[in-house]
Amino acid sequence: MQSIPDLIKKKRDGEELSTEEIQRFLNAVTDKTIQECQIGAMLMAIWMKGMSVIETQALTRGMMRSGDVMSWPHDWTVVDKHSTGGVGDKVSLVLAPALAACGCKVPMISGRGLAHTGGTLDKLESIPGFRIDQTQAEICDVLTTVGCCIVGQTEKLVPADKVLYAMRDATNTVDSLPLITGSILSKKGAETLSALVLDVKFGKGALYKDLTSARELAQSLESTGNGLGIRTAAVLSRMDSTIGRCVGNSLEVIESLETLKGNGPDDLMELVETLGGVLLMMTGLASDLSKGKTKIAEAVVRGEALSKFQAMMEAQGVAKETAKLLCAKNTDYYQVLRKSQNFTELKTRENGVVQDVDGLCLAQVLHQLGAGRSTAGAPINHSVGAEVLVSLGEEVPKGFPWLRLHYETPAPTENQISLLQDSLVLESKEKSTYQKQCLVQEILPPQV
Amino acid sequence: MQSIPDLIKKKRDGEELSTEEIQRFLNAVTDKTIQECQIGAMLMAIWMKGMSVIETQALTRGMMRSGDVMSWPHDWTVVDKHSTGGVGDKVSLVLAPALAACGCKVPMISGRGLAHTGGTLDKLESIPGFRIDQTQAEICDVLTTVGCCIVGQTEKLVPADKVLYAMRDATNTVDSLPLITGSILSKKGAETLSALVLDVKFGKGALYKDLTSARELAQSLESTGNGLGIRTAAVLSRMDSTIGRCVGNSLEVIESLETLKGNGPDDLMELVETLGGVLLMMTGLASDLSKGKTKIAEAVVRGEALSKFQAMMEAQGVAKETAKLLCAKNTDYYQVLRKSQNFTELKTRENGVVQDVDGLCLAQVLHQLGAGRSTAGAPINHSVGAEVLVSLGEEVPKGFPWLRLHYETPAPTENQISLLQDSLVLESKEKSTYQKQCLVQEILPPQV
Repeated sequence: MQSIPDLIKKKRDGEELSTEEIQRFLNAVTDKTIQECQIGAMLMAIWMKGMSVIETQALTRGMMRSGDVMSWPHDWTVVDKHSTGGVGDKVSLVLAPALAACGCKVPMISGRGLAHTGGTLDKLESIPGFRIDQTQAEICDVLTTVGCCIVGQTEKLVPADKVLYAMRDATNTVDSLPLITGSILSKKGAETLSALVLDVKFGKGALYKDLTSARELAQSLESTGNGLGIRTAAVLSRMDSTIGRCVGNSLEVIESLETLKGNGPDDLMELVETLGGVLLMMTGLASDLSKGKTKIAEAVVRGEALSKFQAMMEAQGVAKETAKLLCAKNTDYYQVLRKSQNFTELKTRENGVVQDVDGLCLAQVLHQLGAGRSTAGAPINHSVGAEVLVSLGEEVPKGFPWLRLHYETPAPTENQISLLQDSLVLESKEKSTYQKQCLVQEILPPQV
Repeated sequence: MQSIPDLIKKKRDGEELSTEEIQRFLNAVTDKTIQECQIGAMLMAIWMKGMSVIETQALTRGMMRSGDVMSWPHDWTVVDKHSTGGVGDKVSLVLAPALAACGCKVPMISGRGLAHTGGTLDKLESIPGFRIDQTQAEICDVLTTVGCCIVGQTEKLVPADKVLYAMRDATNTVDSLPLITGSILSKKGAETLSALVLDVKFGKGALYKDLTSARELAQSLESTGNGLGIRTAAVLSRMDSTIGRCVGNSLEVIESLETLKGNGPDDLMELVETLGGVLLMMTGLASDLSKGKTKIAEAVVRGEALSKFQAMMEAQGVAKETAKLLCAKNTDYYQVLRKSQNFTELKTRENGVVQDVDGLCLAQVLHQLGAGRSTAGAPINHSVGAEVLVSLGEEVPKGFPWLRLHYETPAPTENQISLLQDSLVLESKEKSTYQKQCLVQEILPPQV
């Protein structure tokens, strides 16, 4: 039998590992018989030499089976979405209840934010009482009564990923196609889904800067997902600016609730409708993409998605009165959510047409101001955030308020204000090259 | 300041690390603030991408300074030898006292064996009472009175190497030029040497199979050693068969003592004279290599080296009577050393001229029979070993005893006997291609 150093050597030398060999590595990771330095060396060897489609599938399946795999009643249509992460990405908060309103079961297992990336769980936890630590039995109960839940990864789910994920971060081996694929899809696989849609971002604010490399990731995810028996499609979408106008935990919850009340920004609704539409089409709940998108839009417009969100909050620990207040029309969200003690408005430094708002830059400053955490487990300030007050393509005069910054302690430094100002790109009307573009750039249907 | 993941990324991407960056990595290794997975990833990145001469020097110097660095009286000529390891390599046991007899101080810090490679310390520990755990002060005392010692690495010497060495083994990143160079020369650097000679082996029984790759290692070692301010030369020598006739701990001690008594095999004496001669030449104790070799040979012939060995044994804990008995002429070594309970002689299966004895194969079987250890710290049986009874180029009849195997428990299996038999290569006199060759193939003088 080959030892762990033998397996490392094989990958180091660019050879293909067999399914049994990958399984042996993962077993050693899960039962902690491997040395941590060996995991680091293997991750680096995989980062350097890559993995074939067959190896990636074996890695993903092995990780998925390293812990509990969920099981559902046979007549459930269980779906989920995964996004590679964007600034102000609150799609899950709208999409999960909308899909539940359309008859799907949505056991969304989400993560927390690290560095400038926001975490869906952090956003939801800005709602007093919201619990994300449900057991598998509790998840099943919420799905039975409500249809959707958004929860954290339990201890028993994909333990191999927990180990590898933390070490990828420490060893700078995050951006590896097979390792990303394994991490994302092992968790989705353990949810035992009927269909999965992937929102793969590209652009200035995303891990992948261009469409080509994002498509490569999407293809790796798709082929592995379909190989695992999950109907998997991918949506390639732009990530330059923010999604919607709000960034920051409480602010994003407010914007999500407004969206569920029919007042959402176009870009967010475009993403929700497309991602939901693809899922409804894949599961046969809609005959084509266009009908799927319409169903999702209607679920929002009719308030059915909002009702589901309200029920989900209650099922996940939020007091009935709190949930009701948040979902009421023309409500004062700050009766419930934490409001920052200070805010300031940034004004345009010249007139012109808005070409771009650099979402990554915005997110990085907000992270420094306490909206995000630098080390796993650190507390965050849910009230810190920013509202973008202008739209791309909008003509604005000099001195026009374009960003409302919500902050507490620390207050923004001059340098941070200057960075924020630089994130707004204006151009005179004559020289403006701005053209309205859809966020969704390409849809990769499931490979069957 | 760059984080450890930043440093890993830089090396991973093939960039050159600065001296400060390498120092930061080593500091984190030494004070244990780095995660083990990060060490594994960095080792793999170094294995994959290599290191420049400047990086390798920074690595070596940083490792050397991770612990105590020895200091000596100014008028000492402190020298040492390092060998990349051969089967039956007992050069240290003869060379150290011979150099001491020529006026050098030789603080040899040696290692233990692992797998089929023998360890000088294990050999010496087959002498009852021999201690290898001297403190720095004790080493200084032995050098003052005797002139040479052969000891183990103290806890305080090159602690960074201790960590990296163990992890290189676990992560299969042993065969990396900069990592080998750093490991060898940091230890030699901490000995604060005037001159160092490297015995770099190539051939079937060595880590490097051909002269070219051995020369590459020799050059890396030389340029780094000279960069550290140690006059460093390298000798490239063949390693196909065994060095001398004996393999195994007690047996090699006996052969070393016989060599010190003037009855040594030619190949062993060739190595001792060359390596010693190079050192005497480098330190100015001989005007040229030829004179240096003669001085070493004379120190052996005149029994001066034997006296030094006897004194060294006493200084390192061996009883006076025991040391005296071992160094007497026509002595019975087994009054002191452990003799194996059983031995058997292997007979040639045909007649012919001896072309080769596969030293690696021999060593592997002996390891399985208890002469070596599979995990660090495991006990070994000093009495297990083998004597090769024929010489390369010798014509032997069928049924001629060619190997005497000393064993206890486990006894050799049929398969092991068959492997040993296969290690002897005979050819008929007509077809024989054997030509006598020197072990020493090339000498690389110090680059100044």
